[in-house]
Amino acid sequence: MGVKLGEAALSDENQHVVLRGRPDPAVRADLFEPVDAEMPRVADGQFLIRVIWLSLEPAMRGWIADAPNYSEPVPIGAPMTGFTVGEVVESRHPGYPVGTIVQGRQGWRRFAVSDGSDIDRVVDPALAPISTALHVLGVNGATAYVGLVDVCAVKAGETVVVTTAAGSVGCMVGQIAKALGARAVGVTGGPDKVKACLEEFGFDAAIDYKAAEDIGPALDRAVPDGVDCFFDSVGAAQFDAVLERINVGARIAICGTIGMPSFPLPIGPRPNRQLLVKRARMEGFLILDHYDRYGAIVEKLTGWYRAGQIRYREDVAVGLDNAADALIRLLSGQNAGKALVRVGADP
Amino acid sequence: MGVKLGEAALSDENQHVVLRGRPDPAVRADLFEPVDAEMPRVADGQFLIRVIWLSLEPAMRGWIADAPNYSEPVPIGAPMTGFTVGEVVESRHPGYPVGTIVQGRQGWRRFAVSDGSDIDRVVDPALAPISTALHVLGVNGATAYVGLVDVCAVKAGETVVVTTAAGSVGCMVGQIAKALGARAVGVTGGPDKVKACLEEFGFDAAIDYKAAEDIGPALDRAVPDGVDCFFDSVGAAQFDAVLERINVGARIAICGTIGMPSFPLPIGPRPNRQLLVKRARMEGFLILDHYDRYGAIVEKLTGWYRAGQIRYREDVAVGLDNAADALIRLLSGQNAGKALVRVGADP
Repeated sequence: MGVKLGEAALSDENQHVVLRGRPDPAVRADLFEPVDAEMPRVADGQFLIRVIWLSLEPAMRGWIADAPNYSEPVPIGAPMTGFTVGEVVESRHPGYPVGTIVQGRQGWRRFAVSDGSDIDRVVDPALAPISTALHVLGVNGATAYVGLVDVCAVKAGETVVVTTAAGSVGCMVGQIAKALGARAVGVTGGPDKVKACLEEFGFDAAIDYKAAEDIGPALDRAVPDGVDCFFDSVGAAQFDAVLERINVGARIAICGTIGMPSFPLPIGPRPNRQLLVKRARMEGFLILDHYDRYGAIVEKLTGWYRAGQIRYREDVAVGLDNAADALIRLLSGQNAGKALVRVGADP
Repeated sequence: MGVKLGEAALSDENQHVVLRGRPDPAVRADLFEPVDAEMPRVADGQFLIRVIWLSLEPAMRGWIADAPNYSEPVPIGAPMTGFTVGEVVESRHPGYPVGTIVQGRQGWRRFAVSDGSDIDRVVDPALAPISTALHVLGVNGATAYVGLVDVCAVKAGETVVVTTAAGSVGCMVGQIAKALGARAVGVTGGPDKVKACLEEFGFDAAIDYKAAEDIGPALDRAVPDGVDCFFDSVGAAQFDAVLERINVGARIAICGTIGMPSFPLPIGPRPNRQLLVKRARMEGFLILDHYDRYGAIVEKLTGWYRAGQIRYREDVAVGLDNAADALIRLLSGQNAGKALVRVGADP
């Protein structure tokens, strides 16, 4: 990547970023505090990971909220959780020799010890840049795959609409849809993201939700034959507009609700009658439930990548000290590409 | 049934009830007008049906509304549509000899000619009273079956909640759930219907939604382990209360939206986040899409009926002249059992 790292980022000292409070409801940078940490000792059956890349996710707002969710909230005072790519720099585990590149869940830490239980996969640096293991060839790509292939069961010739289309999941929904012979329409915010959807990610059409109060007319032009598959990560007015245009037998994959406040529970048009009239299905899914198939899905994604069918953008912050600010930019949609933090130098 | 029919109902003259207007949004009796009609002539390949039973459905409000729906609205001036059971009284069709009992879609008519294309099935009067072909062994039973077995994929030991539980579909959802080894909880309106659910239909618990502003506490007592399958025909506050209590992996079958006004589109809590957090599915279905399996489903239902596992109640109006009033009673929840109109005498 040619990124120049500052002194701190190159330091061999350990550092964690710990959670100090809960969103109320905004996520502020001072909820996160970088702290010095002991270098962990490696016991038998363990290995030490030097984290190189940290992935930031819109879902992190939910991970730190003290509200019902699909996992326990990150405890106050604990290091923030997150997906990482790192290098094994010390090992007493035969399966992870020194030099192995691993994608795991080491969180916002510079160094972490592991027994393998929080490792998602070993990364082959010969196949693609290792950071892709955190997005197009990682959890974002797999999320797009599960939502579009498993939940929506997309078929060639169908029309797919995806919100947050220029995002790290959304751009993969579009590219997988195209790879499978479907028509891909993206909804995204601002002319730069529309351009990225059309020129980089190969969408057939892209709609700027910031350009009009109501995206309905633009949608009508983009999906004249209606919507067969809808991959949604927003859940607000954009959702309503697409729902109005679904076809009989449509499938809606609920991947996120970034457009819905955490509290109070937002109200909107009830979808029941439209789901009934269209005999349509709306289903929430979590990639965590599909980890048993993660390897097979990544293999499929890697095949498309190597065939030149997958492009991506990264938005890189340098150093754990800057992770909180980068997360807030992500949550407000100011990132341009997959939000990553470079925690350490390449191997 | 021992029902005594008045002069008019026994008459051999033909009569239709035609639609004269649209709901605005209430359905009023004067939208329907009984008119004399010619006795139809029977051509080659046709047969004449003397209608005996007419079924009334909550969905009829949608059939006559001039709003987007799953079928074209009944035209103004045309006979009202509906499911019927009748006897073939004249035939030039080898498949339907005189004396055959048929369940079809003859509508609000005393006599109708058919070529077989609007016949759903031939009814064997030896297996059960022929009126059951319009409810527990007919479209209501099949609707319950498709929603609970196909859409929800209910499993033994799971908890099923159904709204409009004392209704002709709801009571079958409960009884099929019990036949398949699941726990059945009904939501219904008023102590008489609660009693019917518990004592006649064998529900494990029944909740009176009219007894409290919020059915939440009663639901908490009735489903201490949460809800795995939810069969809903209401779509308003009752829906919201059950949705709050679904388990991970829950399936929600949307069968109707009788609690939602036609216009304007009602608003309510957005279900997206709950569906996501619970990895749950919400799916609309129409029995019309499953007619290719109708015979097999009815056979399954008939087996349960003959094994004594299916009970039912009928709420009978006598004569087509009284059909409109009976429909309005049904739409306001005042019926006690499957709403039927006896159009003619038994064979």
